[in-house]
Order: sequence, then structure tokens, then C-alpha cells
Amino acid sequence: EIVAALADFFASRDGPKPLAGRHALVTSGPTHEPIDPVRYIANRSSGKQGHAVAAALADLGARVTLVSGPVTLPDPAGVRVVKVETARQMLDACAAALPADIFVAAAAVADWRVAAEAGQKLKKDGSGPPTLVMAENPDILASLSIPGPQRPGLVVGFAAETNDVLAYARAKLARKGCDWIVANDVSPATGTFGGDRNSVHLIRLHGDPQSWPDLPKAEVGRRLAAAIADHFASGKSADA
Amino acid sequence: EIVAALADFFASRDGPKPLAGRHALVTSGPTHEPIDPVRYIANRSSGKQGHAVAAALADLGARVTLVSGPVTLPDPAGVRVVKVETARQMLDACAAALPADIFVAAAAVADWRVAAEAGQKLKKDGSGPPTLVMAENPDILASLSIPGPQRPGLVVGFAAETNDVLAYARAKLARKGCDWIVANDVSPATGTFGGDRNSVHLIRLHGDPQSWPDLPKAEVGRRLAAAIADHFASGKSADA
Repeated sequence: EIVAALADFFASRDGPKPLAGRHALVTSGPTHEPIDPVRYIANRSSGKQGHAVAAALADLGARVTLVSGPVTLPDPAGVRVVKVETARQMLDACAAALPADIFVAAAAVADWRVAAEAGQKLKKDGSGPPTLVMAENPDILASLSIPGPQRPGLVVGFAAETNDVLAYARAKLARKGCDWIVANDVSPATGTFGGDRNSVHLIRLHGDPQSWPDLPKAEVGRRLAAAIADHFASGKSADA
Repeated sequence: EIVAALADFFASRDGPKPLAGRHALVTSGPTHEPIDPVRYIANRSSGKQGHAVAAALADLGARVTLVSGPVTLPDPAGVRVVKVETARQMLDACAAALPADIFVAAAAVADWRVAAEAGQKLKKDGSGPPTLVMAENPDILASLSIPGPQRPGLVVGFAAETNDVLAYARAKLARKGCDWIVANDVSPATGTFGGDRNSVHLIRLHGDPQSWPDLPKAEVGRRLAAAIADHFASGKSADA
């Protein structure tokens, strides 16, 4: 805590604070969806990119709430961290953190959960393997993008794709109702999941896409935070 | 590497080495069974207990091969670590490490994998959630317990149960064909999975069970390694 406070103190001294007075809500990491008391469905998100975005927004002066799934990363300095496990818990934590000026949905939220979580460990009983029937999870990005007084002024989604990255990202932007999509290629060959680097495309509702090839995740976080600060500095409405 | 070598050097100086000349094969951690390139089925094993057993066996002079699923733990000093992800990879790595005098199966190996792993990320396409059809994984403990010239002299399984711990453990001992079972209660209330303490019962094919209530996992590892050393010192055959 002392180290975090010192880091926060020194961070607060260097550089301009264009996001001072803004509240940024960021999700990060995977969600874990239980099958039974010991087994769960997970995904390969490390949380490194989402945590880097949260840290970069805090560096620009925003008050940051980071809702994080299970990760092995330290909490970023000067950021309020809310730890959750499942998609449903993540949605509840995000709703509780509103209102926010900025919402960055960097978590890799499970699309599906197991429909009927078992109360006891599933056993091999000779009747063969179980079949896991899945149910759809709430869509956190779409939920927070719904127009209304609680909608954050700028909603940024992430798209993690293994193929046709740009096409899927544009379709996601339209389908979710968000303002920007940060699209990255997470096919195994890129090493993005769990790695320290990322190759992303920033796609906005209006305007040409930007491509930021092969950067450290910390630098992707700084560039995204700077783009968010520019957006608010130029007084644009969310869809301008 | 220098730190590990120094730790190994000093560890090699203190205490007797009753397992010198013995090769111990230990499995630890969970396995991850892929659903698609980004999603997988996991379990709550941290690897702390298996890694502690490997370290304790090395402290008693054994040459140790540790086959570990994905964990966030450091490699124990003086132990050869083989890293794997799936149950099938773990079985292959164990088979490749034979012959061994001692096999301790502490990993929480997935009983099932997804029958048809998807080559691309599964998408929400409006047709509703997928149904995951599962297939049975190889049984590593039972496989290495099969009598024959390659069978380790002493085969020790672990049983992680959430209910009826002793009854399930005795049934597992008989079913798998192993010599000892270390049975522990992993119901969520105990905090065993991911925690630093464990309450275990040592059940042997012949002889009364021993109970080691609420100990640090490192101490459970030392007691198990000491029991293994006693077993070989007394010249018992595996089933005596």
C-alpha cells in the first residue's frame, strides 16, 4: 500500500492530467464460469492489456474503477480494483460503478456459462462423459452501450479474433452499439494472449481506422488513453 | 539459475538423503483442455501441493522429474520440470520419464476433454449457445499402476473430493491399482484449492489410515516424502 501510494504520488506529478474529473470504468482479464465446485471454463486472457489501459487512464488524471476477472497481475497503482469471477458478477460490478464518463470493456467475457452448475464434483460413474449444456451470458458491452442517462459518454469495446479481424470488429461495433472498437488478432501464432505485445486496430463509428502494429501492451494502453483524452478535449459527442 | 543452483547446493548439505539413487516422478497442477483457440476447461488446482511433494522428495536425495500443468509457481530448486497443458500431454510426458521408483500423481487431471476442439474461436451466431460434447481423457494414475516391468515400485495417487472423502478415496485406491492414496477435502469451505494449507488422509493398500489435520502444504509434502523414504528403508514391497 505504501509503495502504491508513493507510485501514485509520483505519477500524479509528471505530465498533464487531461482526464482529471472524469470517471473511467475498465474491465480486464478473463471470466471463469463454474462447471462444478472444482472445474470451470476459462479463456486465455491475462488481463495485461486491460490493466495497462486502466493504468494509462489513471496517469492522465482519470478516476479509474477496474473490474477484473481472475488474473495474476498486481493491482495498478492509484486504481480502485473490484475483483470478480463470472460474467454475471462482472456486469453487476460494472452497473454498481456507474455513472462513468468512459467505459473500456477490455475483459474477455465468456459468451456462455454452463446452464446447470453442479453443486458437487462431477464423478466418473461409468455412464460416460457428461454433456455440458451452455446458456448465454449477459452482454456487458451491449448493456452499457444502451442509450440513456446512465450510458457512459464514450464506450470502447475490444474484439479478440482469430480470423477476419477487421470485418468482425466492424460488425461488432454496429451490433453492440458502442463508439469505438479496439480489434486485435489473438490467433495462437501472434502470442497476444498472455504475451506482452499486441497488434491492434482502433475502429471508430465515424472516421478511418488506425493501426498500431506490434507494440508493448503498456504502449497500446497509453495510445488508447491519449486518444480518449483527445476525444474529450475536442468536445466531440460520442459518435462524432 | 544461480539462485536455484545455490539453493540446491545448500539443500544437499543438510539432513540425511534416504532417497539418494531413487528416481521420483511427480505430477502437479491442473490440466487445461481446449474448447477452441481461446477457451478451455480448467480446474482450481494451484499446483502448490504437488510442487511441495516434488521439493520434499528432492530434499531427501531423490532425482525428481516434475510434470506440471499450467501454474504460476516457481520451479522447485533441483527438480527437472516438464511443462504440459492437457491430460494427454501429461501422460506422454510421464511415459517418457519412466523408469521411476516412485510415482506421485498430485495433478488434478481433467477427467474429460472436449470431444471436438474447434480450430477457430466459436462465435455467437444467433443459433444459441453450443453444447459441449465431452470425451474421456486417459487415466494417468491407472495407466502407470498397471503391473509390469515399467511400473514404479510405489505409486501414490491423490483424491480431491468434496464429499464422502474417505469412502471415495478407498474406492479410488482399489479402482486405480495404486499403492497409496492421499485424500483431501477440497470443498470450497476448506480453502484447500489455491490455499497454503491442507487436511489429508494417507490411505495405504494395507495398514491403517493416517490423518494429518490442517498443515501447511509444504509440511504435508515433507511428511509424505518421509513416509515414502520409510517405505523404501523398510524394504517393503509396494503392497506390503
